Amino acid sequence: MAPEDWSINDLMVDIRQFMEDRDWSVFHRPTALAISTAIEMGELLELFQWRSDAEIETSLQSEKYLQALSDEIADVLIYILRLADVTGINPTNAILNKMKKNRTKYPAKEWRGRAPNKIM
Amino acid sequence: MAPEDWSINDLMVDIRQFMEDRDWSVFHRPTALAISTAIEMGELLELFQWRSDAEIETSLQSEKYLQALSDEIADVLIYILRLADVTGINPTNAILNKMKKNRTKYPAKEWRGRAPNKIM
Amino acid sequence: MAPEDWSINDLMVDIRQFMEDRDWSVFHRPTALAISTAIEMGELLELFQWRSDAEIETSLQSEKYLQALSDEIADVLIYILRLADVTGINPTNAILNKMKKNRTKYPAKEWRGRAPNKIM
Amino acid sequence: MAPEDWSINDLMVDIRQFMEDRDWSVFHRPTALAISTAIEMGELLELFQWRSDAEIETSLQSEKYLQALSDEIADVLIYILRLADVTGINPTNAILNKMKKNRTKYPAKEWRGRAPNKIM
Repeated sequence: MAPEDWSINDLMVDIRQFMEDRDWSVFHRPTALAISTAIEMGELLELFQWRSDAEIETSLQSEKYLQALSDEIADVLIYILRLADVTGINPTNAILNKMKKNRTKYPAKEWRGRAPNKIM
Repeated sequence: MAPEDWSINDLMVDIRQFMEDRDWSVFHRPTALAISTAIEMGELLELFQWRSDAEIETSLQSEKYLQALSDEIADVLIYILRLADVTGINPTNAILNKMKKNRTKYPAKEWRGRAPNKIM
Repeated sequence: MAPEDWSINDLMVDIRQFMEDRDWSVFHRPTALAISTAIEMGELLELFQWRSDAEIETSLQSEKYLQALSDEIADVLIYILRLADVTGINPTNAILNKMKKNRTKYPAKEWRGRAPNKIM
Repeated sequence: MAPEDWSINDLMVDIRQFMEDRDWSVFHRPTALAISTAIEMGELLELFQWRSDAEIETSLQSEKYLQALSDEIADVLIYILRLADVTGINPTNAILNKMKKNRTKYPAKEWRGRAPNKIM
């Protein structure tokens, strides 16, 4: 199967297989997986920690930085797909349903150019 | 297209379209999207905040709780796919490459039943 | 007692009293408090989400923004002091010990002007 | 000065001195410090990641675990006090003001034994 053909659910099943091959499912209480996703989120933030917006643009030209960013994004995705798996959430449906709600809540005409959730 | 047929990249393009229809791309500096993902991660944690493992099991029987969990998982996924999009990361490849590294780093025979990253 | 005379430990005891007056200690398993601190951290990040560095400088001139920032910083501090309390950590000693380690690990002469932890 | 006599503001000034001795203030844009606090928060969560509530109780008997916990709590405190410093927030006042609001919002009689913010 070519990478572009993997659905999210295929990826979720691949991650599940990896975990079961190592008997790691026993550690995967939902709270442990939510905490794990947050930890990986913290590691992803390290790539943004000491860089201004201009420095990020420069970093994004670096193959090494892009590889690190790819791995950190993957780690967040892997754990959140694992959390979805053990709690019985279908991630594709979750995204499609939320996007449908977003389209209702933020009609394009009304929200064009206005940042949502801007506090003050 | 049936939900089960959406690839991650299809979802990423759908999210991009939603943002462009509202001219929100201008707000989507990479650091802003990394921060946004972390904020949604915090909201996801709220569903685990005051619940023991036993209470989580009970909550997972509730349709209302599952709906909230689905939405919060979706919000994290939406922002991290958006971050991947603006930084040129292919999320499917990112996951497949990281899983390949994980399989090399944690051979099944050696790691069976041992929690990785356990500190102390 | 004037505000400037409160030690961290005085504040920790005040927070403990507030919790005990409401019988909330029962909810304060250490993991629940670590998760709570992370949730408040997410709310603090909302004040930085859609603002460039220049916009932050402008926002810091606004009394309303400063009040929101003060409250979010307080929420993180309140929960982490509560976590220290229930786990028996003295937060003043924790900071002083860590700063001593930092002074040994990062000698001023060697580290002047170099960002620590800069990845790549 | 004995540790128990340090106010939060004394600690904040000590942290400031450490940073200025290394010319690190230049890196301390408010957003960078908010991100840094979130990263340290992620590291603190690692101490809770794979442990059930019962395992946490056992871990808290270990001197090595307590030392790690003390250091991670300190790292969160150090960065959030640094954030308060560069944005002109007095952390003692911030906590006292927020606790005053909390006492008004959650009268003890009304809230005894009810978890606040419990979603569903």
